[in-house]
Amino acid sequence: MEAISHAGAAVGVLSKEGVVLAAEKKIMSKLLETSKTTEKMYKLDEHIAAAVAGITADANILINAARLAAQRYMFTYDEPMPCEQLCQHLCDTKQGYTQFGGLRPFGVSFLFAGWDKHFGFQLYQSDPSGNYGGWKATAIGANNQAAQSILRQDYKEDISMDEALKLVVKVLNKTMDSTALTADKLELSSVTRDASGKVVYHVYTEEELTPILEAANAAAAAAEESSS
Amino acid sequence: MEAISHAGAAVGVLSKEGVVLAAEKKIMSKLLETSKTTEKMYKLDEHIAAAVAGITADANILINAARLAAQRYMFTYDEPMPCEQLCQHLCDTKQGYTQFGGLRPFGVSFLFAGWDKHFGFQLYQSDPSGNYGGWKATAIGANNQAAQSILRQDYKEDISMDEALKLVVKVLNKTMDSTALTADKLELSSVTRDASGKVVYHVYTEEELTPILEAANAAAAAAEESSS
Amino acid sequence: MEAISHAGAAVGVLSKEGVVLAAEKKIMSKLLETSKTTEKMYKLDEHIAAAVAGITADANILINAARLAAQRYMFTYDEPMPCEQLCQHLCDTKQGYTQFGGLRPFGVSFLFAGWDKHFGFQLYQSDPSGNYGGWKATAIGANNQAAQSILRQDYKEDISMDEALKLVVKVLNKTMDSTALTADKLELSSVTRDASGKVVYHVYTEEELTPILEAANAAAAAAEESSS
Amino acid sequence: MEAISHAGAAVGVLSKEGVVLAAEKKIMSKLLETSKTTEKMYKLDEHIAAAVAGITADANILINAARLAAQRYMFTYDEPMPCEQLCQHLCDTKQGYTQFGGLRPFGVSFLFAGWDKHFGFQLYQSDPSGNYGGWKATAIGANNQAAQSILRQDYKEDISMDEALKLVVKVLNKTMDSTALTADKLELSSVTRDASGKVVYHVYTEEELTPILEAANAAAAAAEESSS
Amino acid sequence: MEAISHAGAAVGVLSKEGVVLAAEKKIMSKLLETSKTTEKMYKLDEHIAAAVAGITADANILINAARLAAQRYMFTYDEPMPCEQLCQHLCDTKQGYTQFGGLRPFGVSFLFAGWDKHFGFQLYQSDPSGNYGGWKATAIGANNQAAQSILRQDYKEDISMDEALKLVVKVLNKTMDSTALTADKLELSSVTRDASGKVVYHVYTEEELTPILEAANAAAAAAEESSS
Amino acid sequence: MEAISHAGAAVGVLSKEGVVLAAEKKIMSKLLETSKTTEKMYKLDEHIAAAVAGITADANILINAARLAAQRYMFTYDEPMPCEQLCQHLCDTKQGYTQFGGLRPFGVSFLFAGWDKHFGFQLYQSDPSGNYGGWKATAIGANNQAAQSILRQDYKEDISMDEALKLVVKVLNKTMDSTALTADKLELSSVTRDASGKVVYHVYTEEELTPILEAANAAAAAAEESSS
Amino acid sequence: MEAISHAGAAVGVLSKEGVVLAAEKKIMSKLLETSKTTEKMYKLDEHIAAAVAGITADANILINAARLAAQRYMFTYDEPMPCEQLCQHLCDTKQGYTQFGGLRPFGVSFLFAGWDKHFGFQLYQSDPSGNYGGWKATAIGANNQAAQSILRQDYKEDISMDEALKLVVKVLNKTMDSTALTADKLELSSVTRDASGKVVYHVYTEEELTPILEAANAAAAAAEESSS
Repeated sequence: MEAISHAGAAVGVLSKEGVVLAAEKKIMSKLLETSKTTEKMYKLDEHIAAAVAGITADANILINAARLAAQRYMFTYDEPMPCEQLCQHLCDTKQGYTQFGGLRPFGVSFLFAGWDKHFGFQLYQSDPSGNYGGWKATAIGANNQAAQSILRQDYKEDISMDEALKLVVKVLNKTMDSTALTADKLELSSVTRDASGKVVYHVYTEEELTPILEAANAAAAAAEESSS
Repeated sequence: MEAISHAGAAVGVLSKEGVVLAAEKKIMSKLLETSKTTEKMYKLDEHIAAAVAGITADANILINAARLAAQRYMFTYDEPMPCEQLCQHLCDTKQGYTQFGGLRPFGVSFLFAGWDKHFGFQLYQSDPSGNYGGWKATAIGANNQAAQSILRQDYKEDISMDEALKLVVKVLNKTMDSTALTADKLELSSVTRDASGKVVYHVYTEEELTPILEAANAAAAAAEESSS
Repeated sequence: MEAISHAGAAVGVLSKEGVVLAAEKKIMSKLLETSKTTEKMYKLDEHIAAAVAGITADANILINAARLAAQRYMFTYDEPMPCEQLCQHLCDTKQGYTQFGGLRPFGVSFLFAGWDKHFGFQLYQSDPSGNYGGWKATAIGANNQAAQSILRQDYKEDISMDEALKLVVKVLNKTMDSTALTADKLELSSVTRDASGKVVYHVYTEEELTPILEAANAAAAAAEESSS
Repeated sequence: MEAISHAGAAVGVLSKEGVVLAAEKKIMSKLLETSKTTEKMYKLDEHIAAAVAGITADANILINAARLAAQRYMFTYDEPMPCEQLCQHLCDTKQGYTQFGGLRPFGVSFLFAGWDKHFGFQLYQSDPSGNYGGWKATAIGANNQAAQSILRQDYKEDISMDEALKLVVKVLNKTMDSTALTADKLELSSVTRDASGKVVYHVYTEEELTPILEAANAAAAAAEESSS
Repeated sequence: MEAISHAGAAVGVLSKEGVVLAAEKKIMSKLLETSKTTEKMYKLDEHIAAAVAGITADANILINAARLAAQRYMFTYDEPMPCEQLCQHLCDTKQGYTQFGGLRPFGVSFLFAGWDKHFGFQLYQSDPSGNYGGWKATAIGANNQAAQSILRQDYKEDISMDEALKLVVKVLNKTMDSTALTADKLELSSVTRDASGKVVYHVYTEEELTPILEAANAAAAAAEESSS
Repeated sequence: MEAISHAGAAVGVLSKEGVVLAAEKKIMSKLLETSKTTEKMYKLDEHIAAAVAGITADANILINAARLAAQRYMFTYDEPMPCEQLCQHLCDTKQGYTQFGGLRPFGVSFLFAGWDKHFGFQLYQSDPSGNYGGWKATAIGANNQAAQSILRQDYKEDISMDEALKLVVKVLNKTMDSTALTADKLELSSVTRDASGKVVYHVYTEEELTPILEAANAAAAAAEESSS
Repeated sequence: MEAISHAGAAVGVLSKEGVVLAAEKKIMSKLLETSKTTEKMYKLDEHIAAAVAGITADANILINAARLAAQRYMFTYDEPMPCEQLCQHLCDTKQGYTQFGGLRPFGVSFLFAGWDKHFGFQLYQSDPSGNYGGWKATAIGANNQAAQSILRQDYKEDISMDEALKLVVKVLNKTMDSTALTADKLELSSVTRDASGKVVYHVYTEEELTPILEAANAAAAAAEESSS
């Protein structure tokens, strides 16, 4: 679990209209091929996504297992796998690796964001030992204590998607080791529903990130001023 | 077993009319999504429930095994699994993990509360090594010694459900590390039978908890006074 | 085996008319649900019972195995399993756990009391390593040395069931760590045959125990007097 | 093998007319049920018997394996299993437990006494490592060095059964730790053939032992006298 | 991973028109039979190749597994395996060897260069723990830090194949431990598409390498001059 | 291999007319039943025999495996197994026990003496690690260095069976720890062919050994004299 | 690999007309039966042979595996197994023994000499870790550094078989620990093709070796002279 605390942070906030996931990119290089894949965000199924903190290779294994489980459920019951069931499926796998000899526990924490017809939008956090819980807003990885303290202060029950976006950016901004949050250091995604009720998983492009970041920086500056 | 002693306490009291389980919540945050799930209470089958002290991820595995065993019994014999049989099934599993090499014993203690047609309402306690026993009132987790001593003093053979509710609250109140027991720190559930004889597992909401807690605090204050 | 020496004592005495088993209860609490189960006595089959000293969870596993073996024998040969065969079956299992790597030996000693048509009433003692032997009177658990020395002094070849009952009570009384033997600290059972020749396993209730204990205490007092 | 040297001694002597096995009982108690079983003598088949020194629980396992092998041989070839073949079968099993990881070697030495149509009466000795050899007279267990030295002195090629009986008693008498050999400390058995050629395994009762012991003691006294 | 840092360097650069892989040969001897095989370049399938840094024997195993996976995919879906899928397949295998007891992790890093219809030309880098990522230009093995810093400086988004060839040669030239890069110390290969759209994997011969090296040396000299 | 150097010596000499094997008996007791079995000589098949130095129990296992392999070969190909093939079969088994974890290597060296139609009379030596080689004369066990040095001095290419017999006796005589070689300390066997071409394995009886030993001792005395 | 450096040296040289393998015999004794087998040379199939440095017992296992693989290939494809494929087959086996727990890596290096229709005559060298490579001339075992340095000096691209023979003898002569190379210390073999194109594996007899050695010694003397 020590390793997870040093991994890049990931933050999730649950609102009535959807769930927002944000993560700090650790590996930044203009040589990195970034157009295709996200570093820490994974779509598990149409209605559920995950953000990861920890060892990427371990995460890949679990993400594959999760996708397979989701497809199997869909195949068997002809409806999307409930979010908590998928979350618990992964956590039981993790738990097994802590109990049997000759196995190394998985070194990854997850944030799961999803929607199902039973409980609507949901946000779960799991740790390497296989514990998990449902949260309204939470953070994993580096400085998660500081992040959760900010979330506790600023989270409102009736938070809107826009406010949630601003909140996760603010949290990452304040808890990152680097001085300023730029669009290339940030991964941001959301799980929402469109007009027809279909669940939509959206990864923000750099173009979409820029105005959000500017607004966040402006707000931070304003807050600074007002507090000084 | 050391780990169990530091886990949040859980208390169970058996009365003629039903069984009461109570547990102290350790993780409290207004960000926690609390509407759906209980932290330490699990319904195993229609007629039996459990309270847990220890590692949640381990508990999840055993709870799943218990639910499966209960369903299989129902399927095979077309009647609910007797409480002690379900309890022993889990304990034998636990025992196996202490005897074979390359396995970590399960780090959880359980309280089982249930009703069956053979012995009526029953309360069992099991520890990580797989030992179990039937009790009229008992406690697991942090300060279970102190809790059991209070139970010994205050338990009456013909205790009513109302008195049992008050007793478990009193026990948690006196043995918790935190100063005052509030509704958000408490999980309370009961196994009773309704007018038609059907077994009912009920988890108390915060609204239902408040009057009970107030009465308990009033009683505690009165007791303090009278003793001073 | 160290663990067994500290476990609660169990004593068995063989007479022409039957076998008597007695054990000291270690866990005593008025909160314990005592009506249903005995702590250290197990009925293995209609014609054979066992008393246990050691780890209860381990004993449960072996007791289940013994019951299964007895039922299988009955099913295959349509007659009760001979006592020694059942005893050796358990001992071979125990032996296996001492010889193979990665396994913890079972931490239980047993007294087996039974009747079969080959050798009549029989009393066997087994230890955790899988050794066993037939005895006329023997003791396992705490202070078994002292207990056996008393048995050697007081045992007569033609002991009656009544005398056997008194003898086991006397032995437990003298070797227990606690000062006085009371009905709630004692488990007493007998294997006898009724008028029709059917083997009867009987567990004494507290009501039945009281006169026996009183007689024993009176005898002890008388002995004290006469010796002083 | 250290453990074997401290185990109760067993002595075997081969004569033209049969084989004599004798062993010292270590556990002596008038409470021991002695009527049914011998402590260290086992009948493996109609024509072969064994005496044991070492861990009884280990011996039980091997004895069962030997009986099974003997029955299988009889079933397959419709004639008794040759003595050496049975002996080697057990020794190969023992050898395997010394060579593979995660297994504890069997802690028992055996004396095998038998008759087959190939080599007549035979006496074999095996040790825990799986070595074995054919002997005219040999000893295992405590003080086997001293016992073998006496055997070397007193053994004659054309020894009669009576002389063999006296010899084994003399050897045990001289090498036992306890002062005097009495009938309850001695187990004595013989493999001979009756008039019809049938192989007979006979365990001596206490009544049969007494005259033999008395004669031995008289002879010892006489020897003492003559040597002084 | 320490071992990988000392292994011979390998560099890869992605351009619009193709991918270039270059590696430094560590074993140089005029006795080495060089006509048939490359030391660090492997063709995995028609459309994908790999460069290796680390233990050759380990690489052989993984390369075989990759070729098999690619053929199986082709057999099943009748189209070439997507590059990233092949890359992840190998990385999942690698990850497994880090998590299970009794296994040594594979000591190899890979550069994968390939083309598929989904994402065009692609360049992936994987490390022994099973992490991987898509890159525009990257280096593995000895001095990969220095190499990546040069790549960051000189890489342009719209780099041509010719420029890419020059770049990899320049990088190897500057980061090699030996003083001057000669044709016999260099392995160079490219993945491009010909006029008909077919993917072509080409390994440069010494004859083809010489002009490239001369140009590179000339450029280096010129750069030296201009900077002095 | 240390253990083998202390084991009783065995010597083999190959002549045109046959092979001679000789071994020193370590266990000597007039109580040992010697008529039936040899201590260190084994007949593997009609045409091949072995002498052993090391742990007898290990040797038994390998000897059985060899006999089985020889019979299987005979059954499959209807001709005797070639000597070297049988030798290598055992050596491959031995090698396996040195390479895999959790197994103890076999602690035995062998001399194989045999005849087959491919290479005539042959003598092989194998050690516990599974190495083997063909020899004209060689020695294993205690003092094998000294023995081989004598063999080197005295062996002639065209040695006759009689001379070979004398040579092995001389070698054992000079290298044994005990002062004088007597018939009961010696095992001697030969593999030759009779007039009809049948291979004959002969173990020398004590009667046959005596003249050979006497001749050897006379020769030794004469040599002593002539050298003084 | 340490062990391999002390093993007897083996040298291989590839010419247009064939491949020459030479090895130094370590075990020399006039008692060794040398007519039948070579100590370090193995024929794997009609078209491929190997020279070995290291543990002979390990080599036997791998050589058998290689022969089996070659026969299987022939059976499946009805043409000889390509040399490199056979070489890699063995190397993959070796690699596996370095990666999995509980196994000892094979302690042997190989030189493979062969001919196939794809690449003509070929010479491969493999080490215990499973690495291998194609060489024109190379050496394994003791003093392989010195041997390779001589090979580098004297090897010519268009070397003839006669010159190759002289070269390997010269290399062994200069790098052996013993003072002079004699015919009984040398194993020499060649893989060539006869007039009909058939691949011929030839092991040189002592008679054939003598003129080669004499020529080599004369050349060495001449070189000495000219250099002095």
